[in-house]
Amino acid sequence: MSDELNGWSPRGPVTELSEADCWSLLAANTFGRLGLIDGDRPDIFPIYYQTDGGSIVFRTGTGTKSRELLENGSVVLEIDEVAEHGSWSVVLRGAAEFLTAPEEIEAADLLALPDWIPVTTYAYVRIRPSAVRGRRFLRHVHVGR
Amino acid sequence: MSDELNGWSPRGPVTELSEADCWSLLAANTFGRLGLIDGDRPDIFPIYYQTDGGSIVFRTGTGTKSRELLENGSVVLEIDEVAEHGSWSVVLRGAAEFLTAPEEIEAADLLALPDWIPVTTYAYVRIRPSAVRGRRFLRHVHVGR
Repeated sequence: MSDELNGWSPRGPVTELSEADCWSLLAANTFGRLGLIDGDRPDIFPIYYQTDGGSIVFRTGTGTKSRELLENGSVVLEIDEVAEHGSWSVVLRGAAEFLTAPEEIEAADLLALPDWIPVTTYAYVRIRPSAVRGRRFLRHVHVGR
Repeated sequence: MSDELNGWSPRGPVTELSEADCWSLLAANTFGRLGLIDGDRPDIFPIYYQTDGGSIVFRTGTGTKSRELLENGSVVLEIDEVAEHGSWSVVLRGAAEFLTAPEEIEAADLLALPDWIPVTTYAYVRIRPSAVRGRRFLRHVHVGR
């Protein structure tokens, strides 16, 4: 599909990551970016997430809009790291669904997510993945302006 | 619009950044994530970009698919930093268009982008922004599993 667009314009040697490696990276991180469609526009939100078995769970404010955007919606989660020794990016696609049962939320260990100032109630969302892909870029050269 | 979904689930004190601050952060960075719509799915690609006056320019592989995805397309660029002293995220929305004139590409200083192994020819894309928004999160607490 979008391979021609595939990301990083500096083309160094690229290694496809195994699905297991992708999940290891997903599990080792808690911060990523959620991509979704808002009407006819793409949108990106930084989120904290957790892995839960073979899925991704995160928390969001409650509200009609967030429900509309996420319920049964096609979403994508991207995480990455840019480092001297090599950069990587993992992209997980899937469908978002709201968690409703308290025991499911507790089981997902979501209560351990940061909770500083509870200005609102939260909704808990699971991404059921349909595909995950990761790539490692063996060299990273930072070129300034 | 999507304020109810607005990003970072840990709700600390949030400061809206001025448009000038957003552009300063965009100019000070070269790595971000491009969000777009591929059919009925959202997609995210890590990219290197440069600011060029009041717009964003980046390079991508040529090809029908990338052209279809980007030409006249609604896109979003997100950059962020997660740090102890405070995290921030800037989201720029706009329309993508291909640069065609060599002098425009040169003027955009795109030739200074990293160029390791030219496995393909490149196309140069400009994002004409329609909106930019940034937020700073005054505290960051990392909570592990």
